[in-house]
Amino acid sequence: MLASLPFYQERNQAQLDSWLDKLDYQELPLVQAMRYGLLLGGKRARPFLVYVTGEMLGCTLDELDTPASAIECIHAYSLIHDDLPAMDDDELRRGHPTCHIEFDEATAILTGDSLQTMAFSILAEGHLSESGETMRVSMIQALAKASGAQGMCVGQALDLYAENTIVSLNELEAIHKNKTGALLKCAIQLGALAAGDKGYKILPLLDRYADAIGLAFQVQDDILDIISDTETLGKPQGSDQDLNKATYPSLLGLDGAQHKAQTLLQEALHALDAIPYNTQLLEEFARYVIERKN
Amino acid sequence: MLASLPFYQERNQAQLDSWLDKLDYQELPLVQAMRYGLLLGGKRARPFLVYVTGEMLGCTLDELDTPASAIECIHAYSLIHDDLPAMDDDELRRGHPTCHIEFDEATAILTGDSLQTMAFSILAEGHLSESGETMRVSMIQALAKASGAQGMCVGQALDLYAENTIVSLNELEAIHKNKTGALLKCAIQLGALAAGDKGYKILPLLDRYADAIGLAFQVQDDILDIISDTETLGKPQGSDQDLNKATYPSLLGLDGAQHKAQTLLQEALHALDAIPYNTQLLEEFARYVIERKN
Repeated sequence: MLASLPFYQERNQAQLDSWLDKLDYQELPLVQAMRYGLLLGGKRARPFLVYVTGEMLGCTLDELDTPASAIECIHAYSLIHDDLPAMDDDELRRGHPTCHIEFDEATAILTGDSLQTMAFSILAEGHLSESGETMRVSMIQALAKASGAQGMCVGQALDLYAENTIVSLNELEAIHKNKTGALLKCAIQLGALAAGDKGYKILPLLDRYADAIGLAFQVQDDILDIISDTETLGKPQGSDQDLNKATYPSLLGLDGAQHKAQTLLQEALHALDAIPYNTQLLEEFARYVIERKN
Repeated sequence: MLASLPFYQERNQAQLDSWLDKLDYQELPLVQAMRYGLLLGGKRARPFLVYVTGEMLGCTLDELDTPASAIECIHAYSLIHDDLPAMDDDELRRGHPTCHIEFDEATAILTGDSLQTMAFSILAEGHLSESGETMRVSMIQALAKASGAQGMCVGQALDLYAENTIVSLNELEAIHKNKTGALLKCAIQLGALAAGDKGYKILPLLDRYADAIGLAFQVQDDILDIISDTETLGKPQGSDQDLNKATYPSLLGLDGAQHKAQTLLQEALHALDAIPYNTQLLEEFARYVIERKN
């Protein structure tokens, strides 16, 4: 349904594999768990967005491998920590036992920690299109902003503290803008930053696109948690309801949530209309976000 | 006993405080826990080493604030995660309840995650002595290498997996070279990197000094775990023995461990002898490492 995705998934997989190969202590459960958490499936939506945004702006694939690898490390670390017993307490992820089930809890904590560090290591050391270091520093700034207490982590915290409380639509949007949206937006920003000035010029339009698909991604996740089944999802169906989490369907009804997803899709496509490059793959991705089944 | 330490502690405290003030959601338990974990005491040995190494090489204090703040964030995050129930399961740190006791486990996990990100955010954004970005990237590379699966995290993992097993002296050194040594060494490297070429030239000597005091630091920790009391330590006395952890006194005897600490001190001082700058504070620190009572 997103025909170009496997190509980028495979490229990202090979890149991550080669970064992992550089580590000492390959036999240590920590390094095996890093491999397990990083390489075992996943849509690779964030690397995909880095690649297609950068390619749209004229970058070659090898100029995009570094930010694509780095952002997937952040995503993988966040999943491992989110699944921990003290957090969402999930035993299944992508159809496989979660990291703390397959290994143990201490290893899962350290694995997440190490994958976060590896993200910054990759950005600090990996190949980029410019020999100067300004682009590299901009990317590190963007990734740090998106993933810590100004982005993903604060979203995760807002989400946790909102369990079993009454959450307004505005509060739900603040949660997801940070929890899911910040990193998806960062993926697109990294692709744009890799293109230098050309990327900077269209950053406001890309940000609008990213805000819309970031939210749409979560709306669709909430919808799938209700209408899909465990086998298709790769994780237990209905797990949000079990945690008494506010979701878009719980606030807007299922029809309302599906309408919201459509509205966000239109916003995303509208932002792309103003971009003077070939936005076909970004358009396909936006449609994929709300049409996907898992 | 290390007269200059309070001055640098206070400066580091004020710097970290101002970085925390920049965050949104100040009232959120996550941000309060970041403040708790980062500002509530601690020797600040790593910022101290950044400052005194950099000043020795002619840097001003404000050229050193950024790396000093960043490395303390990494140290603070590692303590919060190490104290978690699945890791060392400690309830007391620096005489106060550990982060997951004062807040909760989920918050402690996210707090550690956010403090790690903040370290890289600070290095990517903070003031440095050079306007170019080469120094900044070198510092990010050094900090990432020292703290993830090529340094601190792998040390923590080796330490965990060694519990209840028979550990040789070589294995114990590999644990501590990574777990404690890597970050202390990095502190000195960051101070040297801040000085540019002058720092690069003496890096091998500084590394030798750092390797010796890093190991000495751990040897003395192990000794204090036996001979000190809970009140002085700020954490339960004898906690290593309770976990069946190999320690220097358990492998070498108490006298042997104290002799080892003295030998390492001499190695550290010998490395300083060859450095053509005023190494007085680094010398005082080396003596402090094996004379401290907590």
